[in-house]
Amino acid sequence: MPYVQISLLKGRSKESIRNISNSIHQALVEEFKIPEFDKFQVINELEDGNIIFPLEYLGIPHSSKIIYIHITAKSGRTVEMKKKLYAKIASYICGVEDITKDDIFIVISENSEENWSFGKGEAQLVIK
Amino acid sequence: MPYVQISLLKGRSKESIRNISNSIHQALVEEFKIPEFDKFQVINELEDGNIIFPLEYLGIPHSSKIIYIHITAKSGRTVEMKKKLYAKIASYICGVEDITKDDIFIVISENSEENWSFGKGEAQLVIK
Amino acid sequence: MPYVQISLLKGRSKESIRNISNSIHQALVEEFKIPEFDKFQVINELEDGNIIFPLEYLGIPHSSKIIYIHITAKSGRTVEMKKKLYAKIASYICGVEDITKDDIFIVISENSEENWSFGKGEAQLVIK
Repeated sequence: MPYVQISLLKGRSKESIRNISNSIHQALVEEFKIPEFDKFQVINELEDGNIIFPLEYLGIPHSSKIIYIHITAKSGRTVEMKKKLYAKIASYICGVEDITKDDIFIVISENSEENWSFGKGEAQLVIK
Repeated sequence: MPYVQISLLKGRSKESIRNISNSIHQALVEEFKIPEFDKFQVINELEDGNIIFPLEYLGIPHSSKIIYIHITAKSGRTVEMKKKLYAKIASYICGVEDITKDDIFIVISENSEENWSFGKGEAQLVIK
Repeated sequence: MPYVQISLLKGRSKESIRNISNSIHQALVEEFKIPEFDKFQVINELEDGNIIFPLEYLGIPHSSKIIYIHITAKSGRTVEMKKKLYAKIASYICGVEDITKDDIFIVISENSEENWSFGKGEAQLVIK
């Protein structure tokens, strides 16, 4: 169910993008307890100048390697689960790619069950 | 008022994109009762590898023809209206394009009236 | 904290994009009282035909110069603050670029504090 929109600077290899995608998904599987095949993501590769970030904010430095991760998910996850999710996304991405944890920016938008259709023109999460 | 973000694999013709856009809009007009001219959409065409989906989830198969439709709308529509909207979006798109209903993915994010400005720097939905 | 996604027709100069970006940010600093360095934005440049708008809606005419501004922010701003934000974004952009206020479209999506990570895999807005 989460719908994940990832924005980053153009220029990464297909393999690097796959690593980032898989890292985020693995963290969601483990911390948000989503099924392995519940993987819906889009990657927006942006031109130089189109990904805008501060050199430092809240004591955290940023670079053009910054990755914006926007997760839309059904509400219901606790603050604790979200904190663990952030830690794991950063840990997994930075374990396989040359990116620092400083450059992992995550924002979650929540909605309710009736707001999802995974295909067939039906609202699969609504209990009949 | 809805703001509709559509993400799909690059390679469709202008006509195909127009068909998809119009199908979604027509369904919104009929089921969400929005005015005919309330049509605000963006289409993100993604490179191969940048639109990520499972081969099957919840028993629904997916292909690279998958279309992600993210609708931001003012809250107030019922579950019933949303179910009808999903059915109609899928039906209309698949009636004009070679896409199966399995590949129509829809997510709705809701907000309230003061969160919209349609131009002029004003909040048109706020009752004065 | 706001995460700002800006969509517009491809073809603007780097300087024009910078002006639009800075105008939005300056308005957020002044009206939403965000810190100067709290500037996180992405710019989506769209092909002709991929930015869809009505020629007129609510008595407001639109052109292909339309700019879609989607702001995700922590909730807590008043209706009054939002109205002032819209006015200022439109005023600032149209003061430096050849765009009319009619073509400034803004939508805000709100969430709560635990939904933000600015880096380091931590939830900086959650009070410990």
